[in-house]
Amino acid sequence: MNDVPLEASLAYAHAHTEAFIEQYKELLRIPSIGADPAYRDDVRRAAEWIVAEMQRLGIEHAQVLDTAGQPAVYGDYLHAGEDAPTVLLYAHYDVQPVDPLDLWVAPPFKPDIRDGKLFARGAIDDKSGVFLHLKAFESTMVANGTLPINVKFIFEGEEESGSPTMEAFIEAHKALLAADVAVISDGGSSDETPRMMASVRGIVTGEVRVYGPKRDLHSGSFGGVVHNPTHMVGKMVAALHDDEGRIQIPGFYDDVVPVSEAQQALIAANEESAIADAREQTGLETFWGVPDYTYYERATARPTCDVNGIFGGYQGMGAKTVLPAEAGFKLSMRLVDNQDPKDIAAKFEAFINSFTCDTLKIDIKILSSSWSAETLVSGPVAQAVIDAYTATWGKAPKMERAGGSVPIIGMFQHVLDIPVTSMGLGHGSNGHSPNEYFDLEYFGTNIDTAIHFLYNMAK
Amino acid sequence: MNDVPLEASLAYAHAHTEAFIEQYKELLRIPSIGADPAYRDDVRRAAEWIVAEMQRLGIEHAQVLDTAGQPAVYGDYLHAGEDAPTVLLYAHYDVQPVDPLDLWVAPPFKPDIRDGKLFARGAIDDKSGVFLHLKAFESTMVANGTLPINVKFIFEGEEESGSPTMEAFIEAHKALLAADVAVISDGGSSDETPRMMASVRGIVTGEVRVYGPKRDLHSGSFGGVVHNPTHMVGKMVAALHDDEGRIQIPGFYDDVVPVSEAQQALIAANEESAIADAREQTGLETFWGVPDYTYYERATARPTCDVNGIFGGYQGMGAKTVLPAEAGFKLSMRLVDNQDPKDIAAKFEAFINSFTCDTLKIDIKILSSSWSAETLVSGPVAQAVIDAYTATWGKAPKMERAGGSVPIIGMFQHVLDIPVTSMGLGHGSNGHSPNEYFDLEYFGTNIDTAIHFLYNMAK
Repeated sequence: MNDVPLEASLAYAHAHTEAFIEQYKELLRIPSIGADPAYRDDVRRAAEWIVAEMQRLGIEHAQVLDTAGQPAVYGDYLHAGEDAPTVLLYAHYDVQPVDPLDLWVAPPFKPDIRDGKLFARGAIDDKSGVFLHLKAFESTMVANGTLPINVKFIFEGEEESGSPTMEAFIEAHKALLAADVAVISDGGSSDETPRMMASVRGIVTGEVRVYGPKRDLHSGSFGGVVHNPTHMVGKMVAALHDDEGRIQIPGFYDDVVPVSEAQQALIAANEESAIADAREQTGLETFWGVPDYTYYERATARPTCDVNGIFGGYQGMGAKTVLPAEAGFKLSMRLVDNQDPKDIAAKFEAFINSFTCDTLKIDIKILSSSWSAETLVSGPVAQAVIDAYTATWGKAPKMERAGGSVPIIGMFQHVLDIPVTSMGLGHGSNGHSPNEYFDLEYFGTNIDTAIHFLYNMAK
Repeated sequence: MNDVPLEASLAYAHAHTEAFIEQYKELLRIPSIGADPAYRDDVRRAAEWIVAEMQRLGIEHAQVLDTAGQPAVYGDYLHAGEDAPTVLLYAHYDVQPVDPLDLWVAPPFKPDIRDGKLFARGAIDDKSGVFLHLKAFESTMVANGTLPINVKFIFEGEEESGSPTMEAFIEAHKALLAADVAVISDGGSSDETPRMMASVRGIVTGEVRVYGPKRDLHSGSFGGVVHNPTHMVGKMVAALHDDEGRIQIPGFYDDVVPVSEAQQALIAANEESAIADAREQTGLETFWGVPDYTYYERATARPTCDVNGIFGGYQGMGAKTVLPAEAGFKLSMRLVDNQDPKDIAAKFEAFINSFTCDTLKIDIKILSSSWSAETLVSGPVAQAVIDAYTATWGKAPKMERAGGSVPIIGMFQHVLDIPVTSMGLGHGSNGHSPNEYFDLEYFGTNIDTAIHFLYNMAK
């Protein structure tokens, strides 16, 4: 299949860049905020827009597939022959909420080009992944009438909500999604160097609520005799870590093993730039955490436990002498290595339940969970990505370990039992903030990267 | 002065009860919410209404007196001779906020009579104290042309805010307010037994804020390396008490001494009824607190420390994996005996400052403070109150220790150096809740009580 002409594909893409950008705006106009039930119909409309575009391009079996949550989009083109690899191309078409709306210069769903940047919610995270793969497919198919490899597309609609129903969906569609390797295209680079995500951490999110009296009480009348739920929340949160930041949930670290050698080099290489970047982003000079590990190890290779929100009682101006009826906190634990999210969730629940007493009621909810994962950073598939970036961006990608979580990676690895590599498509910023944008100077570059990857995989 | 005819005063009051109720509605229509700056003009309007009414009744030196906060109202009538005692009559004309507004059957500032009850914000707490004292004065003056004792009226406009500027005001007006004894008329009874407040606790309220990074961060990127302000808040709150509820602020209990013998009997007498009442009000079966003391001792005679609110990060539905920039808590400590509020505030600040670290910024605000106080429960002044109740309600008042705080009592005792007794005027409920009401069956009864008190004090 090496005789399928790459140059013809690239030429088609270059000739149509402006038209592609115009078409991209159509998709960006659909407010597919997956986390907000008010946008349910818009999420489906975005899925249907993608299916229609797939059908127009000759992608087969294009369809909206229902999940227990937001719909997924599937399509395939499997005519490269049995010797050619089958690659599962993943991106997500749902987008982050837009709050705070008043900080947007132009409305988030009215795509607006300023200074060569295309501003719109989802422009870089992650309608770009969906759209640029489709345009790479179009460029190759129209120019050459065929594709050098077999591809399956799977586009998710609930990534920004933590993919709560995707594991069951993948289980139910194992045969349909079977492939040799999966490529995650989520987000892009924010500077002139392409990025490859070398690992993600797993996650367990949860919420604890502590209930006391049936209503808020006067602290003068009932202080000292009614157990205050905020005090219990304090005891629980305080007990999560020792004074140096070690997590105190019994058994929490049991399945943490040293990171692989391939990843250890990455950790050492990124230490200094990671700290410099953190100073910039946080405004802090002094960092924190378990002193036995370096900054970058703690940020990406060690598990964490953070309270995301704490609440109870009066929060307004001045004093109000209330003894609250209820208090609580939300937390997220980031997992590494062999830490099983279900096991960690159970250990967390046991830890919280150890605070059980006869004066308060404790309620625990696990909100989401996923496995940690390392992605391919060497070998032929990773090399196909590296070469595609190098050929189009003019430089090799930087391999980075992500502190965050991409649940779909662990699901592909654990349920489909296939390796996963990462190839973000796009160049821009503010993916979770106001004024998200795609830097259009790199719009064609990224389509080229996706085209190169298809040909590299055929080698 | 025993020849001033009590019966004539009572007859006047009885003949005018309906007219008094109509006039009371005028005062209740003024939304004098002292804690809310939006009602600043209304607070002053209420003060001016009272001054105008005082002038109409022949009360002398009637005037609005500015404080650093909300205005106070003063007036006096000092023509009973040097042998007659001078009594400082205290009440407050500011009222609680009205939230939640949608639970009110009728608007809070449109007085509404239903089933013999007058519903309005402030009806029982504490415009009743202001108005009924004035009507007792009117009934006595109009019927007899004189008063059996010397009286000074002082009506406060910031009681519901914790009287933050009243101590300085009293210092500045020591001579004007000089008296033999002060009578606190704040609130009333909610059943057919009159109540006398035998003690109040002191209070220190404060707020702690903990600041970390310059903005909320992604917990995946910065968990484990940036000190989370909610974790510090948890450590602080957890450290406030040991597992049995003993307050751990160093030196907190230093100046706590056993309660007086007169009060010890009250504590024992009220234990069972207090627990029964608490079950009703809280919905709880099991209570909490330092096991070395009885329920009623803990509720009224021991110091407390309660978090009134705790806050930080995400509080909405579901999960949001944020590492908050800021967290904090509000607390109120109830003081007893010789605990000096300034000393306790300093000890609290030292305790919080012991958590100082180089990864977070800690900010402490003391919001208000006042001394604990015991009021007169025996002796001639207390007896004058007891006899006034007994003559008009048909039963002796129940002496109760209040767990809450009435800062003005300690101010009168410490600044004016005079004893204080308590004589609540009113019968009703929901003073700090929607649908506050005065039970009109007792409207005349309470004016009678106030009239009897004037004559009893002359004996």
